[in-house]
Amino acid sequence: LRIPSLTSLSSAAAAASVPLRQFPLQVNLPHAVRRFSAVNFSAQSNTVEKEVNSPATEDGSSRAKFQQDKDPVITPRSQDFNAWYLDVIANAELADYGPVRGTMVIRPYGYAIWEAIQEYLNKKFKETGHSNVYFPQFIPYSFIEKEASHVEGFSPELALVTIGGGKELEEKLVVRPTSETIVNHMFTQWIHSYRDLPLMINQWVNVTRWEMRTKPFVRTLEFLWQEGHTAHATQDEAEKEALQMIDMYTKFAFEQAAIPVIPGRKSKVETFAGASKTYTIEAMMGDRKALQAGTSHNLGQNFSRAFETQFTDENGQRQHVWQTSWAISTRFVGGIIMTHGDDAGLMLPPNLAPIQVIIVPIWKKEDERVGVLAAASTVKATLQAAGIKVKVDDSEQRTPGWKFNFWEMKGVPLRIEIGPRDVSNKSVVVSRRDVPGKQGKVFGISMESSVVVDYVKTKLAEVQSSLLKAAVSFRDSNIVDVSSYEELKQAIGEGKWARGPWSASDEEEARVKEETGATIRCFPFEQPEGTKKKCLMTGNPADEVAVFAKSY
Amino acid sequence: LRIPSLTSLSSAAAAASVPLRQFPLQVNLPHAVRRFSAVNFSAQSNTVEKEVNSPATEDGSSRAKFQQDKDPVITPRSQDFNAWYLDVIANAELADYGPVRGTMVIRPYGYAIWEAIQEYLNKKFKETGHSNVYFPQFIPYSFIEKEASHVEGFSPELALVTIGGGKELEEKLVVRPTSETIVNHMFTQWIHSYRDLPLMINQWVNVTRWEMRTKPFVRTLEFLWQEGHTAHATQDEAEKEALQMIDMYTKFAFEQAAIPVIPGRKSKVETFAGASKTYTIEAMMGDRKALQAGTSHNLGQNFSRAFETQFTDENGQRQHVWQTSWAISTRFVGGIIMTHGDDAGLMLPPNLAPIQVIIVPIWKKEDERVGVLAAASTVKATLQAAGIKVKVDDSEQRTPGWKFNFWEMKGVPLRIEIGPRDVSNKSVVVSRRDVPGKQGKVFGISMESSVVVDYVKTKLAEVQSSLLKAAVSFRDSNIVDVSSYEELKQAIGEGKWARGPWSASDEEEARVKEETGATIRCFPFEQPEGTKKKCLMTGNPADEVAVFAKSY
Repeated sequence: LRIPSLTSLSSAAAAASVPLRQFPLQVNLPHAVRRFSAVNFSAQSNTVEKEVNSPATEDGSSRAKFQQDKDPVITPRSQDFNAWYLDVIANAELADYGPVRGTMVIRPYGYAIWEAIQEYLNKKFKETGHSNVYFPQFIPYSFIEKEASHVEGFSPELALVTIGGGKELEEKLVVRPTSETIVNHMFTQWIHSYRDLPLMINQWVNVTRWEMRTKPFVRTLEFLWQEGHTAHATQDEAEKEALQMIDMYTKFAFEQAAIPVIPGRKSKVETFAGASKTYTIEAMMGDRKALQAGTSHNLGQNFSRAFETQFTDENGQRQHVWQTSWAISTRFVGGIIMTHGDDAGLMLPPNLAPIQVIIVPIWKKEDERVGVLAAASTVKATLQAAGIKVKVDDSEQRTPGWKFNFWEMKGVPLRIEIGPRDVSNKSVVVSRRDVPGKQGKVFGISMESSVVVDYVKTKLAEVQSSLLKAAVSFRDSNIVDVSSYEELKQAIGEGKWARGPWSASDEEEARVKEETGATIRCFPFEQPEGTKKKCLMTGNPADEVAVFAKSY
Repeated sequence: LRIPSLTSLSSAAAAASVPLRQFPLQVNLPHAVRRFSAVNFSAQSNTVEKEVNSPATEDGSSRAKFQQDKDPVITPRSQDFNAWYLDVIANAELADYGPVRGTMVIRPYGYAIWEAIQEYLNKKFKETGHSNVYFPQFIPYSFIEKEASHVEGFSPELALVTIGGGKELEEKLVVRPTSETIVNHMFTQWIHSYRDLPLMINQWVNVTRWEMRTKPFVRTLEFLWQEGHTAHATQDEAEKEALQMIDMYTKFAFEQAAIPVIPGRKSKVETFAGASKTYTIEAMMGDRKALQAGTSHNLGQNFSRAFETQFTDENGQRQHVWQTSWAISTRFVGGIIMTHGDDAGLMLPPNLAPIQVIIVPIWKKEDERVGVLAAASTVKATLQAAGIKVKVDDSEQRTPGWKFNFWEMKGVPLRIEIGPRDVSNKSVVVSRRDVPGKQGKVFGISMESSVVVDYVKTKLAEVQSSLLKAAVSFRDSNIVDVSSYEELKQAIGEGKWARGPWSASDEEEARVKEETGATIRCFPFEQPEGTKKKCLMTGNPADEVAVFAKSY
């Protein structure tokens, strides 16, 4: 019953055939049908990929046979992080390539993670007074040009509609890369007096940025996000809103995604095109690269001055509004994969897992089958009634061992096994995804509703906090406090993050990037206590420490 | 306290200044600030509209003053249905013009109606085994050309991206008008054997069709919808799925939107480009024009043959899958407006209303204020705890009478008034939106939680069923059974729908359209019982009756 892990077998096979990235469709891995190819995804031409995910030589019927035999094969994470990431996405069926270079199809299992993110944030947005809306995605090109730094930031990556209804358009239309410009165009019509403020809206939409180097979830030509836009009467209020939203993202990351992000302020160089200040949450991925996982911008009056978004204040004076915008995108799904996953595949935090508990019924003889399946179905109903997301894998084509590996690879936090002996004992076996082998396995949990529901809820909470704890510990052991550029270079050279006092110029910031590949991820809100600090680069007084890292 | 309705006053004013459509910004209606202009919305050039919704001559401060003084003014529905429709959308703040011709910004109140539609349908889709996904919106132009009738149907109204990242693209990209082609491209990679079937997915997305004649919600250049796509092993299964989904839409329309749609099958001429059969729900609007409010297509093997979407059946044979697709869009919001609205404005079915109950506190003297507001807030909390969507309008800038008219115009199903005497009596006054004047008003409903919650729930249910009943009665009194072309012409000429036996040719169907402006809306599922019928056009035997009407 407790067969050796297929993953460990196949890891060995994969280990014998590095480097995977360069041979996405290699034939010496007979079971590796679905392998994402970084090369194909990032190819810079705009060609339609012809079924890149299936060997081109197969005919229909052999492909079907092939599919039947397919087993999940994941490149070990330690061996090749990028190949591992693409393998997980393909095998866990999170996403697939779209036909256009750099685009992505989000499959049911991946989309369900996004829905869990949406469900949590959407509720929080509404609780804090934001309403959902929809703005058109086509923006007149002239709008983008109105805010100087905005056009500079976005014009290289625009997709343009030039033909509509068979005719060349008089003015090119930009496919929304973000909506500050069109939002301000409408705000000028909706905002008249101080009584119309604050105006706080949000939309869940697709956006397009013509990125050259793409990677599923992390950076795609089109992605999904929410973008919040607010207008306020005072600078203070806008600042408070921008901070409130980055705090909300931080809480979400910690409590729901179990990702211990570092919230802080971006350097001037890294600030959003058109913002006065950008706040960010920075997450450390399993390869120790940083991922910007969410941002909140205090836009000041930059857009309101460009678009003349004004209101009459209580003294009858016309004033420009103060604005914010803030966003989290499908990139966050990539962050979850790269924070918690391991060699066996995906590992999902229970609070965002589409399936929290997978039940695997186990039988050998036909006369055991009915009893085992009935028990599985009862336990499922019990857990479901308690609000737990649970599924029974009762397919007859697969062995229990295959199923164990498959659902581990899919990152399901808990597995419940029910065999004939469990049925007689009226008990189940519960295994944790995050604790491998026997250590994570507990026998003899009563099927009794009052017992099993509590037990499962407790275990889900344990997995949730254990994932966060592991991620915090990994993060903290990979941040080095530095006081000189030499130390910074060494830390970055070792693949770690460097944290040190910084008050140097934009030019010196650029030099760090050029020489080390690292950028200032943020000036963290949480600053070390203590006396005066000296800039690691110049030795001049520095008010704050900055965190440096290579990033996605 | 019970002031005369502002609406009746302003209706009189509006009646003196017809025709409104040609003077969207007319100055003899001092309060009509926000008036949608059909002309501007449908203008065929691709110009950016410069604040079409505000008089161009105003400067900032006078506009603000203007705004303060604005009162809702709705053209009477009986006088000019289209002007009434645009007035309702503008004044109830459902939507606004986007800067690009034919596009629409969906504002919070309008979007909340769409969210209520989504919430209901999304749950039903999942209960019937469909999973949400996201497909890229950019589709290679070559895909659209693969299915012959599909390209013929869609190519005139495509928006094309030709420039990306500053470079001319090798292949033009279509901005998704619908996703059958790209869905099939992916299905070929996901479907291998009969065990992969049925495959049932759905997505909530934006779509673009370069329409020449647009109208907010009803027909816009970009709109929001859900599109379901399924693949099945047999023709039977696909047919069952297509019928299941049109049944779901029908139930939704009746029970949630209180719209008594007529479900049926489209004629061959009116069938979706690429489908074998199209099922539809047809709704009668307040001006007796038909609105196609949702469709479900049995696609047969048309797309699977064009894209080679095949599976291996249980006998090892390769077969093309059988498919369906089905959609409901933001157009449905237009259908709700045009079914239930009246001269006073919007009238929303309680099941989809963003605000089901508006509480208007009423006081004259300052010492009454605190008690009245406290009571309003208690009643609000009581109703909210019972799951009722309730809002208190406690703004001090407006009179109670103004608020009554405003929330009537916004279509809120129930109003609760609380004045000083009500506070002493511990009771409230409840008014129904759908029953005007004193008849719809009941005094002395106890504030006691057990009483007021039940009373409000009962009244909401009454409004819901009363809206449906009124719509059914309106529909049935405007459908005429005809047995000859003469009778059909007469019925259509009177603005009604004609229902009669039909077995004539496509050419004769085209002739009806040309001569009367009416089309076959559907062959209703519900057919009259009785003996053999004769085609109203040819006198030949006819198996079915068809419904003819002018439509949006």
